[in-house]
Amino acid sequence: MRKTSPKPRNAFYAQSGGVTAVINVSAQAVIETCRRYPKVFGKVYAGRNGIIGALTEDLIDTSLEPTANIKALGHTPAGAFGSCRYKLKSLEQNRREYERLIEVFRAHDIGYFFYNGGGDSADTCLKISQLSASMGYPLVAVHVPKTVDNDLPITDCSPGFGSVAKYVAVSMKEAGLDVASMAKTSTKVFVFEVMGRHAGWIAAATGLAAEKSGDAPHIILFPEVVFDPAAFVARVEQVVAKHGFCAIGVSEGIKGKDGKFVSESGLVDAFGHAQLGGVAPVIADLVKRELKLKYHWAVADYLQRAARHIASKTDVEQTYALGKAAVEFAVKGMNGVMPAIKRKSSKPYRWEIIAAPLEQVANHEKKMPRDFITPDGFHITQKCRNYLAPLIGGEAYPPYKDGLPVYARLNNKAVRKKLAPFTIG
Amino acid sequence: MRKTSPKPRNAFYAQSGGVTAVINVSAQAVIETCRRYPKVFGKVYAGRNGIIGALTEDLIDTSLEPTANIKALGHTPAGAFGSCRYKLKSLEQNRREYERLIEVFRAHDIGYFFYNGGGDSADTCLKISQLSASMGYPLVAVHVPKTVDNDLPITDCSPGFGSVAKYVAVSMKEAGLDVASMAKTSTKVFVFEVMGRHAGWIAAATGLAAEKSGDAPHIILFPEVVFDPAAFVARVEQVVAKHGFCAIGVSEGIKGKDGKFVSESGLVDAFGHAQLGGVAPVIADLVKRELKLKYHWAVADYLQRAARHIASKTDVEQTYALGKAAVEFAVKGMNGVMPAIKRKSSKPYRWEIIAAPLEQVANHEKKMPRDFITPDGFHITQKCRNYLAPLIGGEAYPPYKDGLPVYARLNNKAVRKKLAPFTIG
Repeated sequence: MRKTSPKPRNAFYAQSGGVTAVINVSAQAVIETCRRYPKVFGKVYAGRNGIIGALTEDLIDTSLEPTANIKALGHTPAGAFGSCRYKLKSLEQNRREYERLIEVFRAHDIGYFFYNGGGDSADTCLKISQLSASMGYPLVAVHVPKTVDNDLPITDCSPGFGSVAKYVAVSMKEAGLDVASMAKTSTKVFVFEVMGRHAGWIAAATGLAAEKSGDAPHIILFPEVVFDPAAFVARVEQVVAKHGFCAIGVSEGIKGKDGKFVSESGLVDAFGHAQLGGVAPVIADLVKRELKLKYHWAVADYLQRAARHIASKTDVEQTYALGKAAVEFAVKGMNGVMPAIKRKSSKPYRWEIIAAPLEQVANHEKKMPRDFITPDGFHITQKCRNYLAPLIGGEAYPPYKDGLPVYARLNNKAVRKKLAPFTIG
Repeated sequence: MRKTSPKPRNAFYAQSGGVTAVINVSAQAVIETCRRYPKVFGKVYAGRNGIIGALTEDLIDTSLEPTANIKALGHTPAGAFGSCRYKLKSLEQNRREYERLIEVFRAHDIGYFFYNGGGDSADTCLKISQLSASMGYPLVAVHVPKTVDNDLPITDCSPGFGSVAKYVAVSMKEAGLDVASMAKTSTKVFVFEVMGRHAGWIAAATGLAAEKSGDAPHIILFPEVVFDPAAFVARVEQVVAKHGFCAIGVSEGIKGKDGKFVSESGLVDAFGHAQLGGVAPVIADLVKRELKLKYHWAVADYLQRAARHIASKTDVEQTYALGKAAVEFAVKGMNGVMPAIKRKSSKPYRWEIIAAPLEQVANHEKKMPRDFITPDGFHITQKCRNYLAPLIGGEAYPPYKDGLPVYARLNNKAVRKKLAPFTIG
């Protein structure tokens, strides 16, 4: 007598936190892989605007999306289903929200939960993976890693980071050539601000542009190193004397010895309001004041994390592989895990996928090791370079039409609601 | 009896003013084309750091550069020989400099002068083209157009503009998708500052990203339109109400009704010094103050004009064709001209090269026509779109190695000096 297979159950997928150039590659991988296991998965529902979509029963039926659209997610930046910044509190603090999630999951026969995010989201995913035990609702929850900040533990790197790293390295190389051209009679100092409020991974990646002595960037400022204005100014002066110009990569998150963000160190508008954001102008202003040198500064902001046009092929491939692995873990019934990259060698870059328990992922931030930063605190070491270099390897261009990339435009058709409305918070 | 050909004479080439993603394509075209006329041209000498190299007899012998290096200029941004911001005064005001130029040209048998720059440089090139008549030194001077500002008259567009236009359109499209993803719970307003101190061409190009209603950018701020804070804030509010978010492209050169740059409208550091540059934070601050909306802002600065990685193929092709035409004009003895693009049709884009007399080029700035801007002053018209669209057509990727573009590194060997030193100014 044949054993009866369990009935397929639906899957829920949501994007969480800051989006990236490749978070939709995760979505593509999850959806395409689920479609390959029709005996396990029914439909894949995406949360509109992340977990908020689950709480408000605002679900997108991805089964109504043509195959070509799902495939096009593979070259489309940002969050095609919408993301959100919303962290679930603990079960004790907000039991109501967990009960609501279960109500929505039950109403739509959701048995699988794929959460695509960073460290905070891993924590949410962990809590949800415990719903089976804590609230008696059968669910397999798998975290799909994503963060440009590269601060997830265990995994060699985080999906999204390789592409932002490539963007900032290429941009620094190009702008560095520009400044070098102009330095004789004009701009001598260039400051390029990149993301990374707590960890200097992205700032470090600007350092890849310096392939030979004298190449930009000459100085990198990391959040891991206390900013010392006098030492910095002295170094800029030395670099300009030696090379004729100085290019600086700076993390938005650098702090002074008072522990405060340098970006908040005193710029005010005409009305006396503190000006928010932007460490580059502060640094450039310092250079101007102390050294009287002509400067330019750039703040890439969202441009860097949305730059699918210059994504890393390695990043795209890893992101797809991790999304696929997440689904395969779920097929095996592995609950409360995250697929992670394990590096086997750097040159050539070889890696495999392992399962990381969410208890070890959630709320652990991976900062730059001290030996990735030169002793003087102003650049990356060869060890760091060896780590970073393979992550930006290869190009993965989107298709173009009339000079512009052709990015997916999903229909995002809603699943019919079955429940009463719910107010968040 | 055969007529004796005149002896070949050397050519001088210099890069002037702000560099671009494709100014080295001009250099490549000039050098490669000169090499094809050995009976006309001896060597091509490049000025190290532009015209300053001519004044100080700091010449680079491009004949010592391998063919592959010259070819690689075709995919290398910024000025490979160095540029400068230095405008020659009139003959009456500084006869000494013109006499010095002739001394250097004579010492190195320079009979051809190719000057690669924008409007100011066209003026210098015009003055130098008159040296034959004014100071009895036989010389053919041809201007090679270049400027990201796209403000040269007569020509359909300026080399360098198409690539910066493509960069800002692609960046706006990508960042717009990012903001759209985040808007539900986080960033609702995004401000993207681009270059263009006097003309709004680059800001206009961000508008190409808006292919469908609701696409970013929703608002463009041009230097041609007086900035009205109240009208702007009201529009942002409308757009956010309608689309959930608002993306804004802003030219660095917008001015208020007092005629002052908005970027200089009152940001001061902790010591009360005016902060230089950056209209994006000022605009973002205004939005935050008036509408209490969460914002992000980006300033692309040099990144936009150095972004060879996303150059327009059309721009690269036109730039090469113009450099080649400049040399061919010189071969025909045409003095005091600039090759220019004449548009024959927009769709498909067809163009030819004509000769523009420098008297009509120098010191004429081409601003955005009023009918390229919508009546409300906040976006581009279909007419503008038809003009801009072909200029960003096609991709022209540089080669990559280990994840980074491989840009030319020239040897730039100096020509032996023959004259006494000269002090500039």
